[in-house]
Order: sequence, then C-alpha cells, then structure tokens
Amino acid sequence: MGKTFELNEEKVLESEFRTERDLLGEKQVPKDAYYGIQTMRAKENFPITGYPPHPELIRAFGYVKKAAAMANRDVGVLHGTIADAIIKAADEVISGKLNEHFIVDVIQGGAGTSFNMNANEVIANRAIELLGGIKGEYLRVSPNTHVNMAQSTNDAFPTAIHISTLRLADLLTNELEELIEVLKAKEIEFDGVLKMGRTHLQDAVPIRLGQEFGAYRRVLNRDLGRIRHSVTHLYEINMGATAVGTGLNAKPEYIKKISKYLADITGYPLKTAEDLIDATQNTDAYTEVSSTLKIAAINLSKIANDLRLMSSGPRTGINEINLPSRQPGSSIMPGKVNPVMCEVINQISFQVIGNDHTISLASEAGQLELNVMEPVLVFNLLQSLSILQNGIRVFRDFAVAGITANHERCRELVEKSVGIVTAINPHVGYEVASRVAKEAIQSGRSVRDICLERGVLSEEELNEILNPKEMTNPGIAGAKFMQG
Amino acid sequence: MGKTFELNEEKVLESEFRTERDLLGEKQVPKDAYYGIQTMRAKENFPITGYPPHPELIRAFGYVKKAAAMANRDVGVLHGTIADAIIKAADEVISGKLNEHFIVDVIQGGAGTSFNMNANEVIANRAIELLGGIKGEYLRVSPNTHVNMAQSTNDAFPTAIHISTLRLADLLTNELEELIEVLKAKEIEFDGVLKMGRTHLQDAVPIRLGQEFGAYRRVLNRDLGRIRHSVTHLYEINMGATAVGTGLNAKPEYIKKISKYLADITGYPLKTAEDLIDATQNTDAYTEVSSTLKIAAINLSKIANDLRLMSSGPRTGINEINLPSRQPGSSIMPGKVNPVMCEVINQISFQVIGNDHTISLASEAGQLELNVMEPVLVFNLLQSLSILQNGIRVFRDFAVAGITANHERCRELVEKSVGIVTAINPHVGYEVASRVAKEAIQSGRSVRDICLERGVLSEEELNEILNPKEMTNPGIAGAKFMQG
Amino acid sequence: MGKTFELNEEKVLESEFRTERDLLGEKQVPKDAYYGIQTMRAKENFPITGYPPHPELIRAFGYVKKAAAMANRDVGVLHGTIADAIIKAADEVISGKLNEHFIVDVIQGGAGTSFNMNANEVIANRAIELLGGIKGEYLRVSPNTHVNMAQSTNDAFPTAIHISTLRLADLLTNELEELIEVLKAKEIEFDGVLKMGRTHLQDAVPIRLGQEFGAYRRVLNRDLGRIRHSVTHLYEINMGATAVGTGLNAKPEYIKKISKYLADITGYPLKTAEDLIDATQNTDAYTEVSSTLKIAAINLSKIANDLRLMSSGPRTGINEINLPSRQPGSSIMPGKVNPVMCEVINQISFQVIGNDHTISLASEAGQLELNVMEPVLVFNLLQSLSILQNGIRVFRDFAVAGITANHERCRELVEKSVGIVTAINPHVGYEVASRVAKEAIQSGRSVRDICLERGVLSEEELNEILNPKEMTNPGIAGAKFMQG
Amino acid sequence: MGKTFELNEEKVLESEFRTERDLLGEKQVPKDAYYGIQTMRAKENFPITGYPPHPELIRAFGYVKKAAAMANRDVGVLHGTIADAIIKAADEVISGKLNEHFIVDVIQGGAGTSFNMNANEVIANRAIELLGGIKGEYLRVSPNTHVNMAQSTNDAFPTAIHISTLRLADLLTNELEELIEVLKAKEIEFDGVLKMGRTHLQDAVPIRLGQEFGAYRRVLNRDLGRIRHSVTHLYEINMGATAVGTGLNAKPEYIKKISKYLADITGYPLKTAEDLIDATQNTDAYTEVSSTLKIAAINLSKIANDLRLMSSGPRTGINEINLPSRQPGSSIMPGKVNPVMCEVINQISFQVIGNDHTISLASEAGQLELNVMEPVLVFNLLQSLSILQNGIRVFRDFAVAGITANHERCRELVEKSVGIVTAINPHVGYEVASRVAKEAIQSGRSVRDICLERGVLSEEELNEILNPKEMTNPGIAGAKFMQG
Repeated sequence: MGKTFELNEEKVLESEFRTERDLLGEKQVPKDAYYGIQTMRAKENFPITGYPPHPELIRAFGYVKKAAAMANRDVGVLHGTIADAIIKAADEVISGKLNEHFIVDVIQGGAGTSFNMNANEVIANRAIELLGGIKGEYLRVSPNTHVNMAQSTNDAFPTAIHISTLRLADLLTNELEELIEVLKAKEIEFDGVLKMGRTHLQDAVPIRLGQEFGAYRRVLNRDLGRIRHSVTHLYEINMGATAVGTGLNAKPEYIKKISKYLADITGYPLKTAEDLIDATQNTDAYTEVSSTLKIAAINLSKIANDLRLMSSGPRTGINEINLPSRQPGSSIMPGKVNPVMCEVINQISFQVIGNDHTISLASEAGQLELNVMEPVLVFNLLQSLSILQNGIRVFRDFAVAGITANHERCRELVEKSVGIVTAINPHVGYEVASRVAKEAIQSGRSVRDICLERGVLSEEELNEILNPKEMTNPGIAGAKFMQG
Repeated sequence: MGKTFELNEEKVLESEFRTERDLLGEKQVPKDAYYGIQTMRAKENFPITGYPPHPELIRAFGYVKKAAAMANRDVGVLHGTIADAIIKAADEVISGKLNEHFIVDVIQGGAGTSFNMNANEVIANRAIELLGGIKGEYLRVSPNTHVNMAQSTNDAFPTAIHISTLRLADLLTNELEELIEVLKAKEIEFDGVLKMGRTHLQDAVPIRLGQEFGAYRRVLNRDLGRIRHSVTHLYEINMGATAVGTGLNAKPEYIKKISKYLADITGYPLKTAEDLIDATQNTDAYTEVSSTLKIAAINLSKIANDLRLMSSGPRTGINEINLPSRQPGSSIMPGKVNPVMCEVINQISFQVIGNDHTISLASEAGQLELNVMEPVLVFNLLQSLSILQNGIRVFRDFAVAGITANHERCRELVEKSVGIVTAINPHVGYEVASRVAKEAIQSGRSVRDICLERGVLSEEELNEILNPKEMTNPGIAGAKFMQG
Repeated sequence: MGKTFELNEEKVLESEFRTERDLLGEKQVPKDAYYGIQTMRAKENFPITGYPPHPELIRAFGYVKKAAAMANRDVGVLHGTIADAIIKAADEVISGKLNEHFIVDVIQGGAGTSFNMNANEVIANRAIELLGGIKGEYLRVSPNTHVNMAQSTNDAFPTAIHISTLRLADLLTNELEELIEVLKAKEIEFDGVLKMGRTHLQDAVPIRLGQEFGAYRRVLNRDLGRIRHSVTHLYEINMGATAVGTGLNAKPEYIKKISKYLADITGYPLKTAEDLIDATQNTDAYTEVSSTLKIAAINLSKIANDLRLMSSGPRTGINEINLPSRQPGSSIMPGKVNPVMCEVINQISFQVIGNDHTISLASEAGQLELNVMEPVLVFNLLQSLSILQNGIRVFRDFAVAGITANHERCRELVEKSVGIVTAINPHVGYEVASRVAKEAIQSGRSVRDICLERGVLSEEELNEILNPKEMTNPGIAGAKFMQG
Repeated sequence: MGKTFELNEEKVLESEFRTERDLLGEKQVPKDAYYGIQTMRAKENFPITGYPPHPELIRAFGYVKKAAAMANRDVGVLHGTIADAIIKAADEVISGKLNEHFIVDVIQGGAGTSFNMNANEVIANRAIELLGGIKGEYLRVSPNTHVNMAQSTNDAFPTAIHISTLRLADLLTNELEELIEVLKAKEIEFDGVLKMGRTHLQDAVPIRLGQEFGAYRRVLNRDLGRIRHSVTHLYEINMGATAVGTGLNAKPEYIKKISKYLADITGYPLKTAEDLIDATQNTDAYTEVSSTLKIAAINLSKIANDLRLMSSGPRTGINEINLPSRQPGSSIMPGKVNPVMCEVINQISFQVIGNDHTISLASEAGQLELNVMEPVLVFNLLQSLSILQNGIRVFRDFAVAGITANHERCRELVEKSVGIVTAINPHVGYEVASRVAKEAIQSGRSVRDICLERGVLSEEELNEILNPKEMTNPGIAGAKFMQG
C-alpha cells in the first residue's frame, strides 16, 4: 500500500545475495529470490509505474511454461526429470504462490522479454530447488535452454496475454450478465411506472420507466455479445512461432502438442494459428477486444448519466427515481447523498476509453515482424477488463439493484407536460397541433382545455387520444382516428 | 471548390424569393429552392463547416421518405395522389439530381431534425410541383403532415444513417477485398525472396518476403470480416419508433410495411428492431462499425509503415523493395521520389482514428430517450468510410500492385547477418550460442567461421543447420538434431 | 455543394488540354488551368476527401511566394522582370481570385509537396501570362527554379501553416472575446437571481445565477489567453531551412530578407527560427495550438451542458433559464423547441477533441529530418480553428445573448431545498446538522421548522443564519456565530 | 507486490475491531486503523483498481489540513489544543509514515470526498491519540467538525491536487532539464559527424549528427518551458470556496490566512483564486498541464523513434549510432540487444497520451458547480507526471548518455548518396539537376561523374559545390555561385 511510486527503494527479501552472470556482466541477486539476473536488469532498467504484472498474466505464464515442458518432453528434446521439475514449478506459479517474485514493471521496453525471462528464471530456480539444487545453478535447469525451450518471448508472451484476457473476460462477462439480470427485474418492476420521456432534455412524450430499463438491458446485452464474440479470436495462439513466426527451432510435433496441452490445462479451446507469422506481428485481436470494452464503457456511462439525471434533486431536480444511499455525500453539507456508484462507473468508463486509446497507439506502432509495444498494450487491456468487472459488480449490487421509483412524481410530471399534444397530430395535422402547443406553453394551461375551447377535438375524442399510458405503445390510441 | 469555409456568403439560386411561415415567424426563401423555411433557419443557425450532407445520406433519406409514403398509402392514412407525388419526388432525391437543395451543415444542433426537415421540404415542394402547384403551397403537400407522416427525425434519420453506412461499407469492403487479392498475388510472387526478419528494428532471423505479404493479407482479411460483420447489426432499423421509440402515431401495420418496403428498394435485409426504444436511444451500432474501421486503419498504417521502412533509401536505407514512382518527391531535391501512397494511408488512418474518437464522444453524450449528437457522429462515420475506400483504392493501384523486390540486396543482408546463430541454439544451448554471437558481432566475422574455429559444430552440421531458406519454416533444419 | 465525395468525376474547366512533361512522363492538363503537371499527378494520386485546401492556407502560400520573390530579387538571384510577374501573380493568389485552381486534396502523401507545387504552378503560369506567354511555357517562369527558388516544401509549407493559423486564430479569438463580453453582461444582469447551487446534480447550497455566468466568463477568458499565448510561438518561421533545415541553397541575406518581407506583408511579427533544423522537423507548435483549442472546446462543452441542464423542461425539468427559440425542435412533436445552439457547440467540441487526437498522431509520426504527416495535421488544425470560430459566433448571438432567467422558479427551488442546512454547521457541528437534514428530507418539512422544534437554534439565530442571499458570499452570515 | 487486483481480500491490520457510526448506520473498523467509518464505506464501495492514492497526494492533504488548523486557530474558531493535535497529526501524514492508512481507491465516486474523509479520519484519530484518547472518540476531535473545519472536499481536494502536481512537476522538470544537458553534450560531441539527412525515410541532403541532437535538445527545451509555464496556473488555489465556491461557512480572515500558511509550508507561491466559484467548478488548469505532458510525450516518442531508426541493424539496418546494451534482447536469439530504453519511452508516451484522453473526458464531464470526475482525472495526471519523470531518468542515464556514433558508416552513406545533387540546383536549374539525379540513380554512378561527363559543371565548380560538410550550413557553398 502506498508504495506504488516509491520506485527507488531496493526491495530485498533477505540481506544476502548470490552472484549471477550473463553476457553483459554480473549482478547481485537477493539470495532468496527465485528470479535471476535478467529480471534484476529489467528491474533496474524499468522503474516506471511500480506496478507488478497482473496476477492473471503471471498465472498464464505458468500455463505456457508447463505446457511447453510437457510438449518438449513428449517430442524427446527435454529430459523427463527436468520436465517434471519445470512442470511442478509452473504449477506453483499457476497457484499464485510465487507472485511476489514477479517484479518487472508493467511498462517495459523489450516486447515482454523481461516478463518472459522473469517467468523463465522463477521457474528454473524453483525447479532447481525441486531437483535438490540451489538457486542460480542454471546448469541443472537453464531459464533459456530448458524453461524457454523451443519458445521465444514473441510466442510465449502473446499466448500468455491471450490466456489471461480470456480468463478476465470470463469474469467480466459473468458480472455483466448478472447486471443484465438485475436490469431485467427492474424492467418488470417498473413496467407500470408512467413517466415523461425526454429528448434534448426537453419534454417529449410519455414512456414507462420499465421501458427505459429495458433499453438499458438490451444495449448491455449486445455488449455482452460483442465482448464474448471478440475474445473467441484469442483461441488462436502462436506457440511455435518462436522469434518471428517462422517457427525456427520448433518442431512441428511440438507445435501440435503444445496447443493441445494448453487447451487441456486452461480449459479454453486453444489452437495453433493458421499463419504464425501473421499471429506474431499483428495485435488486432487485442484492439478488437479493447474496442468492445470501450463500447461497453460508453454505454455504461450513458446509463449512469441517465440514472444521475433521473435521481437528481431530491428537491431541485428531476427526482423520478431514488438510488440507494451508500455513503455520506459531503464533508461539509449534512444529509447530502450523492450518486457515487454512478459516478464511479463514469470514471471507469473514461479510464477504459483512455486505455483503448493507448492500446490503439501501441498497436499501430508494430514494425515488421513484431510489435514491441505489447507490454503497455497488455497493461491497459488487463486493467480495462479488471476495472470494468469490479465496477459493474458494485454498480449492480450497490446501485441498480436498489433503485426505487417515485411513482407520484413521475405521474405528476406527465400530467403537467405539453408533449402529449403530439398524439393529436394524426387527427388534426402538425400545423394545428403546433398552434395548440404554443398556446398551452404560453398560457400554462392544459392541452385538453385548449383543444376543447378551440373546438379542435371533442371531449370524447380527447378521452381516447390523450391517454398517456396508451401512448407508450405503437398506434394503440391513434389507430382508429388516423383516417378520420 | 475553395468555398468550404466561406460561410457568410448567401447562396441564392435566383434573385427572387418567396415568403414562408412557421410558428416562430416568417422567412424569405429563394424562389427556386426546393427547401423551405426550416431549412433556411438551419442554414442560418449552423454555418459551421460549410460541408453539405454526404450524397449517400441524401440518397438514403430519399429511400426512407419513399418507403414511408408507400406504407402510409397502404395503411390508408395518406391519399394515393399525394403518396404518388411524394414517391416520385423521393425518386428524384435518390437519383441525386436534387443534391444541391440539401444545404444544411453536417454539424448541426437538433439531433438531425434539420437534415430531416430539409428532406421533408425538398420532397414536399417537388411533389407540389408534380401535382401542378408552386413551391410553398404546403396545403397541397405538407412537409410535416404528409412527407414526415408517422415519422420523427428520431426514426427517419437513424434509418437513413443505417442505409448510407451499409452502402458505403459495401463500397469500402469491395476495395479492401481487391487489395487483399493484390496482396495474395504479391505473396506468391515474393515467396522465393529470402530476406532478413527484424524485430525491434534489429536483425532477427531469416524470413521470406512472401511470408510478410501473407501476414498483411491475413490481417486485412480479418478486417474485412470485422467490418462486414459489424454492419449486419445495421439491418435492424427503428422506423415506427417516432419520437422516443414508443411508436406514438405509428400504426403497427405501417411499421411492418415500411421495413419491408425499405428492404425491397434498398436491397438490404432491413427489419424492424426488436425494441424500438432501445433502437432510438442507443448508438452502439455506429461505434461498433467505427471501431472496426479504426482497427483496419491501425493495421493499414502498420503495413504502410513497413513498406516505407523496407523501401527506405534508396542508398542510405534498407532498400529491400521498390515502390512505384508516382510523382516528383520534392520541390527542391531533384530525382527524389517519396513513398507518397503509403504516407497518404498513414494520414487517412490518423483521420479515421481521430474520427472514431469524436464518434465515441458523441455516442457517450446520449441522454435518456435520444442521442442528439448524431449529426457529428454520422459526419465522421461516413467520412471514415469514404476516405478509407478512396485511400485503399489508390494505395492498392498506385503502390502495392507495383511493388518490386530487390532480390540481391535482400540476400546480401541475410548473408551478413548474425541472427542466423539462433538456429544453433537447440544443438549447443543458448549460453554457448550467445558466446558465438557476441564474438561474431564484435569481430565482424561470420557465425559459421566462429563455430568451426571454436569447434562448436562440424562443417557437416553447419551445412544443414545454417541454411537460411530452411529456417523460414518450422523445424525443418532443426528437427533432426534436436534430440541429438 | 453536394460534391464533397464525388471524387471520380473529372473536373475540366474547358474541353481542351495542353501537354506538360516531367521526369516521370507527360500528362494532359486542362488548357485553362493555371495548375500544371505536378498538380495533376497529385489530383490523380490523392482523391481522398474531395476537400480543397482551406482558403487561408492558399492565401498564406501567396504571401510566402511573394516574399520569396522579393527576397530573391533583392539578393540578386532572380531577375527583376520575373520577380515582378511572380509578385503580381502571388497577389492574385492572396486576393482569393485563383482559389479554384488549388485543387489538391487536404489529405495527401508527400509532406505537402503537392500543396507547394500547386502554388508554384499556379503562380508560374499566371506570371507567364502576365509576361505575355501562354500557360506551360516554363522556360519563361519555372515553378521549381523561379517560384520555388531557395525554397523547399519543407520550409514554404510550414510557413504557410503558421501564417494561416495566425490569421484564423485572430478570427477565432475575436469571436471568443465578444462571447466573453456577452457573458460579462449576463453576469451583471443575473447578479440578483438567487438560485440553488448543485453538485453531483444534487441540491447543494445557494448561489447567484450571475456568479455562474461569471465562472463561465473567467474560464473562457483563460482560454482566450491560452490560445493567444500559444500562437505567438508561430511567429518563428523556418524560411531558409530548405530541405532539412541546413539551409542548403539559401543565402544568409535571403533568409534575413524573406522573414522581414513576410512580417511586413502579413502584419505578424514573423522572424527566422533560431534553429532551422529544429523548426523543420518538429511540429510541437501545432500540437500546442491544438491543445489550447481542445481545452477551450472542453470548457465550451461544459458550459453548453450547463445551459441545457438549466433550461431543461420546460415543465418536467429544471427550467431555471430560457434559451431563445431558434427553430421548431421536432418534425413530429408540435411546439417543441430544443437547445440546438448548445448542442451544436457540444458537437463542435467533440470534433475539435477528435481533431486534436489526429493532430497528436500526425505529430508523433515525424521521422528524422521531417514530419511528412503535416497535410492531415494542418487540415485538422485549420478546421478546428474555423469551426470553433463559427460555432462561437452563432452560440453567442443565437443563444447566450438571449438567455433570460426564470426568477420565480429559481427562488422557489431555493426555498424548498434542504441544502441551506449547511449554514448551521459552524454553529451546531456537522453531526447535529446531519440529524436536522435527515429529518427534513424524510419528513418533507423545512430546515427552519425542525431547528426550532428541536431547539437547535433560536428564531433570531435562524433569521440571521438561514439567509440564502447572504450564503452566496464568504462568511457574511456565518462569521459572527463561528466562535459562539 | 502482486496484489494490485486482488480486491476481495479483506485487509485487516489486526483481528480486533471497533464500532463506528454515521447517519447511514454502523460499521466495524479495524482497531488499529487510523481511518474510520467513512473510509470503510469507500473501501467497500470502490474496490476498482486496487491502487492506493499517490504518496504525493497524501502528503498534500497533510499540508492542507495542517494549514486549515492553523488558520482556524488563528481566527478563533478552533481551540488551540485541538489545533495543535491536528497539526502534529498532519505533520505525520506529511512525513509519509501514515501512508498505509490511506486506503481508498484512486478511482472512486463522490468527487474525492472519500479521499478527503480518509484524510480527515486519519488525522482526527491520530490527533485523538496525541490528546490521550483512543481512536474513534470523535467527540474529542471530529473529522468533519474539526479537521474539515471551514472546508469542503470541493476546496480541500483540488488544493491537494494542485500541491501534489506542483511537486511532481518539479521532479519531472528536473529530470527533463538534465536530459537536455546530456543532449547538449551530445550535440557538441557529434558536431563533426557528417551524415545523410533523410526525409520520408528517403535520402535527402547531408546534415551533421550534432545538428540532429541539437534539434532534440531544442524541442525538449520548449517542453520544459511549456510544463513549467502551465503549472504556474496551479498557484491559484480555492481554499475557502467550501461547497460551491461561495465560501459559505468560511470567514474572510480564514481565507486569507490559509493561503498564506499553505504557501509557507509548501514553498510554492500559492494564493487565493480571484473567483472561487470559477476555481471550484473548472478543471482547465489540469487539462492544460496534461496537454503539456502529452506534447512532451509526443516529442520524446519521436526522438526515441529516431534513435531506434538510426541504431537499427546492426548489420541489416541504418546503424549510424549505437545505444548502450542494457539487457539481453531475446530469450531465443543469442547476442541480440534491443533498444529497450527507447521502447520504454515510446510506451510511456502512449500511456501519457491515453491518460490525457481520460483527463479530457473527465474534464468535459463537469456539471454546474462541480466536476465530480476529479478522482480519475487526478489519478491519470499524477501517473503521467510520475512515469514521465521515471522514464526520462532512465532513458537519459541508460540510453542517451551512452550513445556513440559510427563515424565511418555515416560518412560512407553520405558518399554513396545521390541527394547531394540538390546543391547544383541554383547553378543549373531544377530541371537539369533532375536529369543528372535520374541518371545517377539508374546507373548507380556518382553525381560528380555524371556532371563532369555531361559537361554540366566543371571540376573546379564541383569541388566547391559538392562539399557535403559545407552543405550543412546555409548558403556557404552555394552563395558565390548563385548569381553566376
């Protein structure tokens, strides 16, 4: 807590270090750390946000490395003992218990190599321990040669993105589906609440509150469909692509096996992309998911705005509905309760829309065989998924589910409105109706009175035509007069 | 030409005027103009961009008004003579011959009422003429009572947006499909061109130029699918919704008939939306189309960037491919030829991405029963469709179709690269391979020589392993050694 | 009109053609056209938007070419006779009378070379005529050698952007300044209108309507300052930079003279940039101007939203103010009048914000010595300036200037509000005040009554404390009780 | 670490709880927690990102509460003993030692009330302890009545934003200033490195590498000025505005004093805004700062792109410069070193640009007397400041400072380029020069040879004209021939 931006402090798990080496030289690594020298270099190079990788991304790397070890073992290039140790270590990563050893920043150069090497090093060191060695003895299990065998960051990282996105999209769509259920219940509950419809924030014609909630339900239902449809494109993974998609160093049997293993252990119908070069350099699958999130954010924000408008007041606003009180609204104004759960949805929406922008920029910046901007892309994508999931859950439970209607206030506003004059249109023409409307607005009198006084329509006709409830369905009141 | 922003000049078709009246007062309308007083008011109120409506939007209004007249006639509320005149006038609008009478600005307040009234007035006045009257005699044919019968801007305008978007999406996807064909041809043509793959703009491993064009083809093919899929949601139209979706003043038989008529005369499988209230207030179908355009723009921009990189030079850049010379590139530097057709694709992409942003803002600003920001939304949507269509056509014909490869240059770069060292990885391990690579880079010598000198691999092994062509497919060279 | 996207039609001024040649071959040019072969190539290559260059950009090219001819003449590299003819032709361009010969599309590849060559060709051909020749006789006056002498697109085009932006910013800020004056008048007019303040759309504490208009005035006044400040950076121009800023082919005396001449004839204090390489490759001056426009757009949109909220109703909304009726608001709902002048401001704002996005993308895409994306950048920048100028003018004249207040309605809402309970805070503490508020809200009774009944404060105290008018200034009512 | 999105876990500092109450009911608060019931409610309502407030925002709240206590004490409404305890507690907040008690999410509804109440509760409880009480005994020190005395969230929160932004902008501009110094050093170091200039990625004319670094320095220097200028507007704070800017419950003497105290203890020349209503509802000062950050991000990204281009290769790219090796570049390709420090700058830029978008959306969503979207706005603003600061530091130290030039490679590329033909322009005209260029490109021969062979210029003339080094300054070589 509170550490997010305190990037300079050296986080050391224990006071002792071990020395590791690579081609660029050597580094001290905390003795208890499962990560190694390349993670240390990344930590030093990229002290940017202070945010560690998303737990679901870490888990997904566990799946990838486990499946790779299984496939490499099966095709005979990885010794069974080493494979078993890697698989066990990967299982621990999947369980989340090694999360604190994933320390590279979410914004990093290098196309995710630091994420991948962090995973390779943690799994290698844990596997070494499981084989009775001590951390750093990479001759037993090498992060590159064994854990990363037949892989590149350029297939392992995108595949991990796919898996974590699929998982978070599931969580999000589950919450969204439940929100849709709650809206459905409100649609039924409020079916009888007649109220004034508004366009341009100006009085229009009558509508039922239930109809409004029905419209919210339907648009979110399309969002649900859009998100679910878009993530199906993530079933195609590029394991076996290695560096640029040509599959250099990956055997065809391995490629077949790893996709199958990954599908089995994740439960998603993953399969090898038809064209690994395409799948390695293009990021459209992510921008597509982000676009569906952006559209959902826009729709949620519009709904939140509507609820804020309809609950405005209580005494100097529209006040047609009430939102549950969740917290005192003001540090100075006693008794004030604000629509905070709607406001948080607006803000989440703004964040998701901004994130989509960042994702678009990152996607456009791909060059030739690779998009090296994937770290910032995936940071924003996973954040959007998570904050929408969290926001929808509390918006639903703490706001929508508890909305009540002010029936009387709704009816009163319909009754004093001029907009119902629209219904006389088909009977007297737009021009005559306009004159009635103008007189009603200027005089403050009712449409009915003016129609009667001016002899525009008879009392009997008006009784049929000026029935607000009937006006909320097509042609019911109007039909019989239309040809008159 | 050149008049775009000269908004103050009064465009008068003839020196005489007629006087028209509405509830707010009277106005002089040019005697020859088919539009009337409400169009005049809009012209005065909104001198913003100087851009008239998109021709396809005008045409779509023609379809809507024609179908409405047919449906209203059928259900017996519109006299056959008037209906026929409206239908004929609408046909003239469809033909494009009345385009110059559509004068309201693309950016306008009022949720498109000015577009709708411009259409209503033009058609009414033309119908009046066809019935032997003179313009302005609205007792014969009223823009509101007859042409707009059983309609509101809030159903007529969105329906016109749907139809024009469908039409422009057809034109766009046709061009895109042809670009994909051209890329397919290049993929085959360049299949034998071995070249260096690059990640991070740094030398990676070999790839074939044809494979790169294959990746371009595939991502654009997904864009094609995305755009085509997204516009199918526009088949649902909200005719009959009238003001707020409740269908006030629209008879159920009319609603059925108008959708059928519109489907017939446009050729699109249009149908009445399941929920007219939802369909009237939500604009997610547009943001969805725009998102697919944005993703396509991102992908096209990435491809354009790649082509610019690969054709950079000719003498001080990468120079692997040549783009056709389209125009002298410089007003000062003789002989310079620039990748102008790629640059225009980049710029179109930036415009489309910016337009998507405007569309998102407009979509989020919907309130309660209506989104009044639709004019700016549709302006940007139709522009994105048109400029992508135009840009893809010239990019394809003037750039992609004429690309040639510099085979020798490509081969030379592969030969002097160090990246092929990756192929020895599975045989000697990452750590040993790294040492070979380091020595090669520092000494400027070849990977092969160092391997031989250091006894890392035998000449026979190297002959098999260091075969760049073989490296461009999975596991071919590597396979047999992997278990060794 | 209506031709915006009809890009395929060949626009021919007369049925005869002349043949022109360049290194890439020959082309037929309409005989009456002042433009030449390079413009023709650009027209063919870039049929993208159908929009011609902004008139102010054309004018600015006239200034640049005129000043260049004067400077080249002075330093003795351009013959006086040719210089005079170029100057006269440039004057015609400045006057706008040759606008129809500027036909290249606003979105084009080539970093503006086509704009520059269009200008060079039009001026060369007109100069040839003035010298008694016929169009196309470029041996008399060459577009490149003479009109473009000592220039490159890379200095002429940016300088033209600077000049046109300065001019449009002047027009915009003049309109904005007048809007601020109108707001000032309303601030005074409404100073006595006591009304309820709202936060979170919920009742807060009293405020005066004049105070609200004062806040609008002040934020727009800052926008005025921001825009004016940002364009001063455009006074630095890069004439003399030629191709990449090194000034190749430009004599130092020429560089001095051209800036001075341009300053004289445009009236802006233009001067040579300190570092021409920097000034040629960086576009931050444009993004800075666009950012100030974006911020102004955001503020204008917020104000438009406030006015729409406060004028909502008339019978089912807040209805504290009235906007002038500008046009019938609905094609179906008689008597409806909508806040169309506010809505057009919202939409202009969305466009400007989207344009800023496109500008940012274009700016980021600069590479090495040049930003080739300037055409789309300047298209959006000039459009933003123009539509803001136009929008502010009509918003001011057709909306803000005519706003009236519903005094009685405002007062009534204050009186029935609970928010005034805040004023008893310093006297009884937040906790007691909260209990009073809660009871008032739940019972529907007034704060005063509850205070009296519960003995919280005496009648005398309440008379002083609960004075809404006094509450609209710091500490007036509260002061004397605070220590009590 | 790794906890970012694990929002469901209940973070309990100890197993025991105390019970607190407010008007909405009661809650269990961890006994050791300094926060109270309102913080608990916020924690429950907003489990969105899992990110706690930025440490600098917490510190700034400490300043605000300390100054308020001092001012309230001075004007005689807050007892000295309570004031002293509050001041001491606020000092502890300023020191950072209570950071872990600031637990509300960065994205939250309620316009920052939860931030403010978290601060009020932590300070109240700590003050209670300092006075010998136990946490929760709010009769001693009340979060609302005492700590928040004469304040509202609507002045305390914006003021805290101002202070934290000023502080982070200082840190950022210090790093930026040092980067500019490093660029200055490189500009001098590389002044003699002659290389080819490129426009459109195509060979243009010679330039010196030092000139390029000079252009980077200058644009960033403008960014420095822009950022520093923009934050000066934050010196105006709105303490005393209370709920809506009218200053209800704030005494004029208090308003004077608190600004003075805040200026003293923060070291910034803070002063009371001229119009508190304006200052409370408008957020343009933040969008302005964010815009300057966005522009800096764009410029940094362009520079990073240039460095990536110039260092591309090493063998198949441009390879004019070398970036320091910071980490092994690939998990599969041995010896590969990537421009990771440039890539991280690109990604930070994308994030900052996306953040600016979110900030714009939040700013536009202000309504009437308040902008309730400030939490997401400030989250993005402070993040942008911090990641730019962090990114610039490592980019400077780990990349720019260590750049070396490949002199020979640079010279070789100049020598084989055709672009130098531009220099013969003023001597022979553009058309002749074009023919020379065309022949040079097609034949692969040098410009000099062709000029000689074709008799275009004499050997003596060519020796003077075709001097690349001379070409990098205005008119030096060209001058004497120009009039020839």
